[in-house]
Amino acid sequence: MGEESIIGKSVPRVDALDKVTGAARYTADLCPPGALVARILHSSIANGRVKRIDTAAAAAMPGVELVVTCFDVPDIAFPTAGHPWSVESAHQDVADRRLLNSRVRYFGDEIAAVVAVDEVTAERACRAIEVEYEEYPPCLTVEQAMAADAMPLHPEICPSNVLKEHSYSSGDLAAAQAEPGLLHLHRVYRTQPVQHCHIEPAVSFAYGEGGKIVVVSATQIPHIMRRVVGQALGLPWGQVRIIKPYLGGGFGNRQDVLYEPLNAYLSQRLNGRCVLLEASREEVFACTRQRHAITFSYHAWARPDGTLVARDITAWSQQGGYASHGHAIVANATTFLRDIYQDEQALATKAYTVYTNTGAGGAMRGYGIPQGCFAADCMMDDLAQALGLDPILIREKNMMRPGFVDPGTGIACQSYGLADCIRRGRELSDWDRLRRAYAQQSGPLRRGIGMAIFTYKTGVYPISLETASCRMVLNQDGTLQLHLGATEIGQGGDTVFLQMASAATGIPFADIHIVSTQDTDIAPFDTGAYASRQTYVTGKAIKKTGGLLREKLFAYAARLLGCDAAQLQLCGRQIVSAAGEPLISLADLAQNAFYGLDYSEHITAEATSHCADNTFAFGCCFAEIEVDLPLGRIRPLKVINVHDSGVLINPQLAEAQVHGGQSMGLGYALSEEMLYDEKGRLRNGNLLDYKLPTALDTPPLCVDFVQTVDPSGPFGNKALGEPPAIPVAPAIRNALLHATGVAVDELPLEPKRLVRLFQERGLI
Amino acid sequence: MGEESIIGKSVPRVDALDKVTGAARYTADLCPPGALVARILHSSIANGRVKRIDTAAAAAMPGVELVVTCFDVPDIAFPTAGHPWSVESAHQDVADRRLLNSRVRYFGDEIAAVVAVDEVTAERACRAIEVEYEEYPPCLTVEQAMAADAMPLHPEICPSNVLKEHSYSSGDLAAAQAEPGLLHLHRVYRTQPVQHCHIEPAVSFAYGEGGKIVVVSATQIPHIMRRVVGQALGLPWGQVRIIKPYLGGGFGNRQDVLYEPLNAYLSQRLNGRCVLLEASREEVFACTRQRHAITFSYHAWARPDGTLVARDITAWSQQGGYASHGHAIVANATTFLRDIYQDEQALATKAYTVYTNTGAGGAMRGYGIPQGCFAADCMMDDLAQALGLDPILIREKNMMRPGFVDPGTGIACQSYGLADCIRRGRELSDWDRLRRAYAQQSGPLRRGIGMAIFTYKTGVYPISLETASCRMVLNQDGTLQLHLGATEIGQGGDTVFLQMASAATGIPFADIHIVSTQDTDIAPFDTGAYASRQTYVTGKAIKKTGGLLREKLFAYAARLLGCDAAQLQLCGRQIVSAAGEPLISLADLAQNAFYGLDYSEHITAEATSHCADNTFAFGCCFAEIEVDLPLGRIRPLKVINVHDSGVLINPQLAEAQVHGGQSMGLGYALSEEMLYDEKGRLRNGNLLDYKLPTALDTPPLCVDFVQTVDPSGPFGNKALGEPPAIPVAPAIRNALLHATGVAVDELPLEPKRLVRLFQERGLI
Repeated sequence: MGEESIIGKSVPRVDALDKVTGAARYTADLCPPGALVARILHSSIANGRVKRIDTAAAAAMPGVELVVTCFDVPDIAFPTAGHPWSVESAHQDVADRRLLNSRVRYFGDEIAAVVAVDEVTAERACRAIEVEYEEYPPCLTVEQAMAADAMPLHPEICPSNVLKEHSYSSGDLAAAQAEPGLLHLHRVYRTQPVQHCHIEPAVSFAYGEGGKIVVVSATQIPHIMRRVVGQALGLPWGQVRIIKPYLGGGFGNRQDVLYEPLNAYLSQRLNGRCVLLEASREEVFACTRQRHAITFSYHAWARPDGTLVARDITAWSQQGGYASHGHAIVANATTFLRDIYQDEQALATKAYTVYTNTGAGGAMRGYGIPQGCFAADCMMDDLAQALGLDPILIREKNMMRPGFVDPGTGIACQSYGLADCIRRGRELSDWDRLRRAYAQQSGPLRRGIGMAIFTYKTGVYPISLETASCRMVLNQDGTLQLHLGATEIGQGGDTVFLQMASAATGIPFADIHIVSTQDTDIAPFDTGAYASRQTYVTGKAIKKTGGLLREKLFAYAARLLGCDAAQLQLCGRQIVSAAGEPLISLADLAQNAFYGLDYSEHITAEATSHCADNTFAFGCCFAEIEVDLPLGRIRPLKVINVHDSGVLINPQLAEAQVHGGQSMGLGYALSEEMLYDEKGRLRNGNLLDYKLPTALDTPPLCVDFVQTVDPSGPFGNKALGEPPAIPVAPAIRNALLHATGVAVDELPLEPKRLVRLFQERGLI
Repeated sequence: MGEESIIGKSVPRVDALDKVTGAARYTADLCPPGALVARILHSSIANGRVKRIDTAAAAAMPGVELVVTCFDVPDIAFPTAGHPWSVESAHQDVADRRLLNSRVRYFGDEIAAVVAVDEVTAERACRAIEVEYEEYPPCLTVEQAMAADAMPLHPEICPSNVLKEHSYSSGDLAAAQAEPGLLHLHRVYRTQPVQHCHIEPAVSFAYGEGGKIVVVSATQIPHIMRRVVGQALGLPWGQVRIIKPYLGGGFGNRQDVLYEPLNAYLSQRLNGRCVLLEASREEVFACTRQRHAITFSYHAWARPDGTLVARDITAWSQQGGYASHGHAIVANATTFLRDIYQDEQALATKAYTVYTNTGAGGAMRGYGIPQGCFAADCMMDDLAQALGLDPILIREKNMMRPGFVDPGTGIACQSYGLADCIRRGRELSDWDRLRRAYAQQSGPLRRGIGMAIFTYKTGVYPISLETASCRMVLNQDGTLQLHLGATEIGQGGDTVFLQMASAATGIPFADIHIVSTQDTDIAPFDTGAYASRQTYVTGKAIKKTGGLLREKLFAYAARLLGCDAAQLQLCGRQIVSAAGEPLISLADLAQNAFYGLDYSEHITAEATSHCADNTFAFGCCFAEIEVDLPLGRIRPLKVINVHDSGVLINPQLAEAQVHGGQSMGLGYALSEEMLYDEKGRLRNGNLLDYKLPTALDTPPLCVDFVQTVDPSGPFGNKALGEPPAIPVAPAIRNALLHATGVAVDELPLEPKRLVRLFQERGLI
């Protein structure tokens, strides 16, 4: 069996059995018995300074091995964003973190840490530490932080709290607005901070071994983490070793380097003894990363036929106390706004990223695009409503078309399934009938249908580096090991990589084993799981390496058989002649290659694929809902996502990926929000008070695909990982608009907000 | 700094700090908490058959997860010897083991196993198993086993108990004997069974992961173990993964596959749950491998001037109940006998390997040569005494000379330091003066000085396969990872490999890190630590790969700098021009190679070195002793080893290696012996009753080297690992002969034996 056909086949996940039976081992499972346990003391103010810290009582407690405070740690500022390193300092991430901080910038900031023989002792010791603060009024919103008299959080980085701003314009905005007969709408769309809620908490353990500091961590980005831990500890990067086991969800939170540098430091201070640092759920909420709350002031000018003539958009991104991924998120959102819809005359965008005394925003599935899509597709429906147009028609008039090239990044539309996605969604959702059926309703229960569309670029080129390596190792029985630096983070990467390896080599899928754990000392380099890059960028490395391995197999076989390598083919487990005649099995070839007394060669192949390419994926969401007006409650009836992710490597996994994104989109739309009190303390930082949707909150999830063949994708494929989360919230918001006529401009669409709006509009 | 000078430099061991501080983690340290614990039920008879086994009580005990018996396991016979696989079935190891055995072949044979939640439960359950045997009289000696009426242990393999025999002859023995004036001596030399006594017991744990069975094991031979576990379980070898952490001593016992197949099977039966199987010290003694007891019937004919005219030697090797390394050991001993001394006219050797109802003999440091050397060098002194010649003179007359080529194997003497070793030992030991001084003594305390010489081939070519691979990975900071399948087993391999990698690449020693753990899924293939092969065979792979890496570094630098790669050199951490001008640091090159936006290449190199070569190492031991006649006690005063191991990579480590061998040789000479009772039960299988020499038993150990430059060695080096253990016992035996005139032909030279002999000879 040639295995080209393995592409597009829904083979079961290779990690499924281990994961459902509990055999799969995650970071905490691997921590050796007897490891010490670290706990962190977090600040109980949002803005201020630690004046004095008394650790005497804590240090004296039996079982306490180490107490360190913000006054003990090295004065090294480091970045935490999981971006590839840049050799140009101007493109390096903002280095504004220290291992522990005396200048407190959010409620929960890390000010001391305790290492003890067990968790209870460590926790008790943390509580025994006395801290005296100098407290400043917190800046909890962008408005407060940008006020003229606001105290800068990081004066050494920026004198105001604006971490970064940028603007983009094309065309003559003033002239465009002057066109007679235009509809001008101005709306302010607000998105809320939400948390990733991966089930495995942030966890790592660190120990010294072989002159290195080793950190075993639940991370998406082992090779990047190696660099950041090196930076944070002032160590040459080669003296840091990161090991990444199976991982219980990432969603971007683990595209940041969280507590690993501190964990490594604590172990280093204890001469390399093993120290476990596992965050509680409350710490994950308050102290890891969150999706940036972004506010858009959005002006649009359109002709009566729906043609967008011009837009003027300003976005403010609430960064929180530390830069993390910083301005890249809102920059991505504004780029999306210029890509998904085209203005006939002019576009101006301006974006600010603003430090605030809240938890830090970082990467989260979609990386600014769910926010941008909410703004873009709310405006589309608001324009459609004002102009009396069908929401699909106005989109089709203005959306990205084949051949589009982003004027800033140069990223080109290399394959295009957007129009077909909409067409398919329209059919599946029974759009035309339901739009009419729900047009005129009364009574307390009303239904509506809405939709939204998006585009998403696949990797990060040319904004940042795209590179990946792959290694293939022939086993003694003629099977193959696939060795990657790319990470399985629950998304099914391992399975898809194996399918690609099978296609690239011609070796049967069942005969290829993946090395799922990344160890930066030996794993081929890869920047890791983020953007929606791995099947695209790592896929290219797999394809290249597979070709190289084939060459080596054929060369060895030709040497052995005394024939011409160029005439050989691989057919299933056999090397065959050009005429298809079986010549030698891979198993026999491997036996000879390993154990030949006259000649042996342990066949491996390793190659880097530098990827100077990118491409747009597309999709849409159609949502049908029922609204209970008196209760202010939206019940989603059906959510349909249709995606153009190019060729699907594994349709069933692709569908599951979309299900997860739809679920995340539902929470974003309806219930999730991180709520801070006036002191900057997170009020609902746990899984009871934070309203993550459950299975009971989830309607039938419908998924379909339009499979284009992307010429730049290694197997015709393009982004799939993040897109599903993007369009759900605006689709539901637009369904609400359809059902009630109420345009809600702020997420989430939760009962308190809706009841207030329905009351204002006289609906209840 | 060019690092060619690193060869011959006594850099500290890279694992020293971790090992002395306890940070180094061994197999049991890595076993996850909550692992199940297995215990084995061993037979309480030496020869017979399990008729009935009742596990009901054991299986019913709370906490017992699994009980398996010899009637449950698959009927697959497998070999255990750590030899490379041979594609020719005639050269494959004898497959005579099963996971558990109903046909009991030694006292301690494995007949059932229990897996429970903890060790105590497992042990109790083992004791609750009732076994009914059919018992046969045990064959505890070669004589008993070869008797005409002896019951064959493995009738399916050989109808008698002679597992294998072979003979060799050159010249006309009858004609040679007929020469007038020859001295004919016939002696029977006997060596005893001894145990390796590595401090870490045989230990492994196994679990299922990713569709594979994973065994973490304290082994010398991970890649070979992968194959054997696959064979034993009937699995494709690629579905087995072996991980080898640091290891607490091997000495050849872990060149056998011990309980790992059973461990893997137990985990497999429990659906991949993690099962720890750690042997007790008593089990290590009784049930793992031992040094073969070999008896030599040795005829020699010499002229009055000491010239050896002819020899006729028959050797019987006591194999024990299972074949393990089998006939290879005694074959090695007889080959040694024809290599170390040359007969002018004729030589005949014959060797038998005989199954007996004792623990199985396997590989142990020296692999038959300590036994062969005992026979060879006892005879030399016996001839010298009979002819009134100096022992050195008679050796110099007959020993291997430069240019020697073994007539059977074709292994050639490619460098020759034997004569210089003897010269140096003679000086260091004050031989001439002491031989005279101790010639005439009386009284109860007498002194003597003796010596022995040896040769040792470095690898196993052409008897078996020699092949090794190496991978080098450039780190992001310009340092290097060295990735090998060769194993650090306490001998200092990692340090020496790093020195070689530094010499091969030119990268400073401090900038190269070793991947010490072998994982068969990713480690470059290597057959492992045995023979004295790794610095020779793996060294060649390191040298080859280092050259490849240099090419890649220079090619990358040339691409970057726009110059000719052929003109570039590496000088310390800098790539320099032909004129020595620094062009780019390795750190900057690495930064560019990993993070270049236009082009990136993750520089690694991997290569196989097939080694179709071998060479002889040499050495000698001079021992000075004092004998207490009434107590029958030998007190060693000084032991001097002088070795020709070619160029020393790390002289201090080499010296330490010799110290360990001398200590092992002292135990072999003076006190160690595995004692069986008439039922075949090992009487002294623990570290209290088995007399391993301690620091208090050890005299000053003196070590010197004659450094030849071997043209076939990658860095002029040749065997060092095993040789130090070889010549100590005969040197001490010959010193005893010198001190007392008593030629003892049996090891160990322990008080009971000596008192009896001294009484017979009227000395006491």
